[in-house]
Amino acid sequence: MINTDTIVALATASGNGAIAIVRLSGIEAIAIVNKHFSSVKTGKSLLRQKSHTIHLGHIVDGKKVLDEVLVSIFKNPNSYTGENVVEISCHGSTYIQQEIIQLFLRNGCRMANAGEFTLRAFLNGKLDLSQAEAVADLIASDNEASHQIAMQQMRGGFSSEIAKLREELMNFASLIELELDFAEEDVEFADRTQFKELISKISFVLKRLIDSFAVGNVIKNGIPVAIVGEPNVGKSTLLNALLNEERAIVSAIAGTTRDTIEDEISIGGIGFRFIDTAGIRDTKDVVESIGIKKTFEKIEQAQVVIYLFDAQQSLNNLENVRIEIVKIRNKYPQKSLLVIANKIDTLLDTALAKINAIVPDVKLLSAKTGFGVEELNASLLNLVNTGALRNNETIVTNTRHYDALLRAQEAIQKVNYGLDSGLSGDLMAIDIRDALFHFGEITGEITTDDLLGNIFANFCIGK
Amino acid sequence: MINTDTIVALATASGNGAIAIVRLSGIEAIAIVNKHFSSVKTGKSLLRQKSHTIHLGHIVDGKKVLDEVLVSIFKNPNSYTGENVVEISCHGSTYIQQEIIQLFLRNGCRMANAGEFTLRAFLNGKLDLSQAEAVADLIASDNEASHQIAMQQMRGGFSSEIAKLREELMNFASLIELELDFAEEDVEFADRTQFKELISKISFVLKRLIDSFAVGNVIKNGIPVAIVGEPNVGKSTLLNALLNEERAIVSAIAGTTRDTIEDEISIGGIGFRFIDTAGIRDTKDVVESIGIKKTFEKIEQAQVVIYLFDAQQSLNNLENVRIEIVKIRNKYPQKSLLVIANKIDTLLDTALAKINAIVPDVKLLSAKTGFGVEELNASLLNLVNTGALRNNETIVTNTRHYDALLRAQEAIQKVNYGLDSGLSGDLMAIDIRDALFHFGEITGEITTDDLLGNIFANFCIGK
Repeated sequence: MINTDTIVALATASGNGAIAIVRLSGIEAIAIVNKHFSSVKTGKSLLRQKSHTIHLGHIVDGKKVLDEVLVSIFKNPNSYTGENVVEISCHGSTYIQQEIIQLFLRNGCRMANAGEFTLRAFLNGKLDLSQAEAVADLIASDNEASHQIAMQQMRGGFSSEIAKLREELMNFASLIELELDFAEEDVEFADRTQFKELISKISFVLKRLIDSFAVGNVIKNGIPVAIVGEPNVGKSTLLNALLNEERAIVSAIAGTTRDTIEDEISIGGIGFRFIDTAGIRDTKDVVESIGIKKTFEKIEQAQVVIYLFDAQQSLNNLENVRIEIVKIRNKYPQKSLLVIANKIDTLLDTALAKINAIVPDVKLLSAKTGFGVEELNASLLNLVNTGALRNNETIVTNTRHYDALLRAQEAIQKVNYGLDSGLSGDLMAIDIRDALFHFGEITGEITTDDLLGNIFANFCIGK
Repeated sequence: MINTDTIVALATASGNGAIAIVRLSGIEAIAIVNKHFSSVKTGKSLLRQKSHTIHLGHIVDGKKVLDEVLVSIFKNPNSYTGENVVEISCHGSTYIQQEIIQLFLRNGCRMANAGEFTLRAFLNGKLDLSQAEAVADLIASDNEASHQIAMQQMRGGFSSEIAKLREELMNFASLIELELDFAEEDVEFADRTQFKELISKISFVLKRLIDSFAVGNVIKNGIPVAIVGEPNVGKSTLLNALLNEERAIVSAIAGTTRDTIEDEISIGGIGFRFIDTAGIRDTKDVVESIGIKKTFEKIEQAQVVIYLFDAQQSLNNLENVRIEIVKIRNKYPQKSLLVIANKIDTLLDTALAKINAIVPDVKLLSAKTGFGVEELNASLLNLVNTGALRNNETIVTNTRHYDALLRAQEAIQKVNYGLDSGLSGDLMAIDIRDALFHFGEITGEITTDDLLGNIFANFCIGK
């Protein structure tokens, strides 16, 4: 299933830049480039150059000079894909990029499929499957936490943990299978006590990895936070204040109108997705109205709810605020709720004391002056279980891995039950093989063309 | 004025890609990267590596691993800027790009100004000024002709022509200045006949270069073509037909509504900018109306006018068509006019003969079936004086160069007049120095900070 034909693609982001990289990989990569390369200095063939060297020259199409370029040579197996790889650093105009790619397409190359460079790296044993998947996660990561997890996975932290478990289990599996060969003699090569210990260790690791998915998922996709409050209580100002505090990467996902603000903000390296909602106060009268329904839908999607009210406007109405908060707390007992009194900058201390007295667990804030924003950041971060992240533990972020881990867990539980109930070796061997299969799925020892197709289709072309 | 502090910038297009390049240049470039680089294989310091080599490793910030990267080393003076240069090929996420750049900004680098890498290349003598300017043109070029001209200029074709003239003139200048030292002895070191020959040769070259600017300008910016005709005569269909024929790069400049179509199409490597206009037939009644005024304004901007009419609709009205065409020809004697009868696919041969008889120089076309499109392409190309382009002659595209050439021409004419009228050496020396000055301006022997500032401000950051 390994293709060794030579593929070509633009490896850098599309559009004009100072420079761009056109990448070729395959058995003929160096030879094909060499035919269209004229070296400025040495005049020496690229085929005679060492791996990991760079050469200044021109890409020529017959007599036409397409560009002055730097050509980097990577020789099989010391390259990203494990094949011969050439990277051409050309001037970054879209026109030149296309001309160079088309030149090679006319001369023995084929356009690379999405993720095909990384697929080849996997097929040539440069990366295992979970590492290859981490490459895509790494490129997609836009905050410190998701970057760190993808980085750890790409460097093999996750795979090595799985591979170790798989190896230990495999040792026992072969002993148990050996017993089957001597079935009539009723011997036990596999020490049942040691095996029981291993199974319990594997169960423990599996549970930790499976549990980490909740955190991993949140980190990968950002933590959804619904901001609930009447118009003009300062939701946008709050968002801006959080932004200024952190100078984070912002992306307006849904648009720029105030009604549908959905911004992602990175706080302490964790992505938070803020979802603005319509008012919620009018529920008494128009519970069925579409607007309110939507608000509730958005709260459903959120993991954290921020209830924001205008401290000045509500000062003589704090009892109502308290009732609203109780309603939300009762309706969504599972969600973390943060109650915030905004616009406190002009209030006297007596007013603040009154708010504190009537509204429980309220945080005082002035989005305008920035007072209380830092504390709010800390509160948001506290809501996330970042313990695992801090301790550099392996965190599962990939649904495919999560799924394989669940199946492995199921098989391991069966093995455990078999051990306890004295199940015969041949039946237990089936469950062990099943667990081994699912471990192998994660790292890619066990794959199908369909699976690989699905995984690499999500890559960009050029990776 | 040469800064040797170390600068850093993203060199590839912004946005997510498979990989991105962060580039550093300056005396400390290799040392700074080395402090934050941990080699995967050799563990050897980057400072001890050869120029033009590539090294796999990690960019680390303390204990935090930012990315697995390839680091390319270029040692002073063998680099783009002539300084120590490091190019870091990292995973192409915006997050990683920014983290790496920020790491170096915190550790001894400064953000590069627009074009600062190329400015340094110029200041270090790696490129002359017109070559440096060609780098920006090259990145901006989006068709074969402009690419080819920029390429030629970058490779020094233009500068070497200017430099040669300058050198020859300089030789005579020094002889003439020498004569001034011996003024009382009335000697002539500079052979006046030879000098006259040189001046006439310089005049000839200058005239050719100055004349080439008309072509160069058109190639650089595309040839403006106004399409005139009533609504529904098939203007958009024609544009699409031209496009399909050429599979060219299209960019909707003004928008997608039919009223303001302005498309750029590359035909035979030359860019044509098509400007759609409102109807022109109603001129008799509403000459002053704004719509018509705008049409005339657009025709004014164009170099070529295509008059398109519906052959079916106009079949019994061809005399009017003929009159319209005469009107346009009289109003715009300077513009190239192409008259096209569209929608001829359903007409009988007798009808076609009638059109040919009444409307002079008419081209028959069916935008729908594609008949006549190829001939139209050829006609458009014929209108451009591409002789110079075909003969690989130097073409001036840069307004600054054009301006300097005009001034040099003026000075050379004065020298010529001085020679003819037996002007004294000291007066003639002033004009010669003037011409030398303007030649020097083009290649950058003579510059000011203001001039350099203006030129490089138009570059992108990272180049």
